[in-house]
Amino acid sequence: MFKVLMRRPYTQMQQESASSPAQCSAMIRRDFPVAARLSHHRVLSGVPHVLPRLTSASAFGSSTESLVSRFCVEKTDLKDYVLPNASWFPDMLSMYQEFLEKTKADGWLKLPSFKSNRDHIQGLKIPSGFAVSSGTSSDQGDWRIFIRCIQAEGQGYEYVIFFHPTKKKSVCLFQPGPYLEGSPGCAHGGSLAAMMDETFSKTAYLAGEGLFTLSLNVRFKNFIPVGSLAVLNVDVEKIEDQKIYMSCVTWSRDKQTVYAKSSGVFLQLPLEEDSSP
Amino acid sequence: MFKVLMRRPYTQMQQESASSPAQCSAMIRRDFPVAARLSHHRVLSGVPHVLPRLTSASAFGSSTESLVSRFCVEKTDLKDYVLPNASWFPDMLSMYQEFLEKTKADGWLKLPSFKSNRDHIQGLKIPSGFAVSSGTSSDQGDWRIFIRCIQAEGQGYEYVIFFHPTKKKSVCLFQPGPYLEGSPGCAHGGSLAAMMDETFSKTAYLAGEGLFTLSLNVRFKNFIPVGSLAVLNVDVEKIEDQKIYMSCVTWSRDKQTVYAKSSGVFLQLPLEEDSSP
Repeated sequence: MFKVLMRRPYTQMQQESASSPAQCSAMIRRDFPVAARLSHHRVLSGVPHVLPRLTSASAFGSSTESLVSRFCVEKTDLKDYVLPNASWFPDMLSMYQEFLEKTKADGWLKLPSFKSNRDHIQGLKIPSGFAVSSGTSSDQGDWRIFIRCIQAEGQGYEYVIFFHPTKKKSVCLFQPGPYLEGSPGCAHGGSLAAMMDETFSKTAYLAGEGLFTLSLNVRFKNFIPVGSLAVLNVDVEKIEDQKIYMSCVTWSRDKQTVYAKSSGVFLQLPLEEDSSP
Repeated sequence: MFKVLMRRPYTQMQQESASSPAQCSAMIRRDFPVAARLSHHRVLSGVPHVLPRLTSASAFGSSTESLVSRFCVEKTDLKDYVLPNASWFPDMLSMYQEFLEKTKADGWLKLPSFKSNRDHIQGLKIPSGFAVSSGTSSDQGDWRIFIRCIQAEGQGYEYVIFFHPTKKKSVCLFQPGPYLEGSPGCAHGGSLAAMMDETFSKTAYLAGEGLFTLSLNVRFKNFIPVGSLAVLNVDVEKIEDQKIYMSCVTWSRDKQTVYAKSSGVFLQLPLEEDSSP
């Protein structure tokens, strides 16, 4: 029964929504009896600590090269969003071209970006104990990774992430559209925080199988005008104790304005092979 | 010329996008010669420090009561999104009903939520020196506040914020939809960070004219399953030195799971009367 519940698709939850609140809560709690625990210091009473003890010898055998080769595989049946479109202003276009040149000789990689994270991890799955009811691979639900939630060109997130495997650095070119507004004419602080979290996430994964955000800290300095280019520069500062520590400085195109500084800590956890049909 | 540039609408920027990158950057930089500075400690060289020196006697004359009465005015020509719809699961519905009861006798207020922050501040404007080119009030652009970017019911942010003026507390009921996904079946960490930023923002404004996010710090503890209810409990911890300090604990409906803990610091700055046509 538990196993069936674990695989109840979101669409089925919608059909069951006529249940009483207590029933609904109970169903959800049963689905996630070991709620994904992201901190070493929090354990539900009666449930064993789920984070595997890793020695440095056993930790994370996948090299950045193998992670990159798996992540950056070309998927001709999926739309890759990191291609210029009519909504890209000159700053976004020109800096994109600069980095495309760097992918030819300077060791940078342009990361693909599909509509859903599920497309990125085909053949892999979240480790048991952390997985959340997401239905089967043939779930009819329209799942989208958050920063691809707005499909209309130029209205939401226009972004590209470039990654340097050797330097363990990323650069994200981010052009916020009018659906990301906070203060009139400016990108909502939360929209930038989400862009940082996503850039940290992809960087952490490729640099060392960082999988879940433990913490995110943002210090805002200046507004990002809607339609302008913000450049997020991410560095991996250190990897220790099963955590990946990163920093980010977000600049204007001409580097005259610092928009924000931030840091992120991610938990290292390898994805598992998915042998389900 | 500066004044004209300050009022160039985003749609005009789109028409001018054929300009060279240097021209575009120059235009944007001219629009915002005094980029909104949010920190006491950062000043562009050659530009005077724009934060007004406030004595405790002159600081922020608007009481919470007057701010609430202005913010919560009924606008019959605008859609208020904080009404139940078919996508609300039982937990969201039941807790919403609980808090509606509290608005009748316990001093809680349900905050309205329109498609754009511009609708919330009609008749007011961002103080000079912080304003960003947003066009005239008759700008044809489709501006949306970020957490209302997804219009389809149940696919993105379903949320309601209740505020208690005397206790200076807020409770946000947040049900994330499948367009907010991060890890399969879970809300993206960035989507929660944005919900926190927005809840802090409305709380800070009503509690003391807090206007801009200075910092946001999030510690993630457990995943929020898509479709479940997350309850954000925000408290104003202190107001000093022109800053509003707030904390937030995000729980599951049954309070058995802490999803995240966060803190936010906002800059106090009163909106100005907008006498433009």
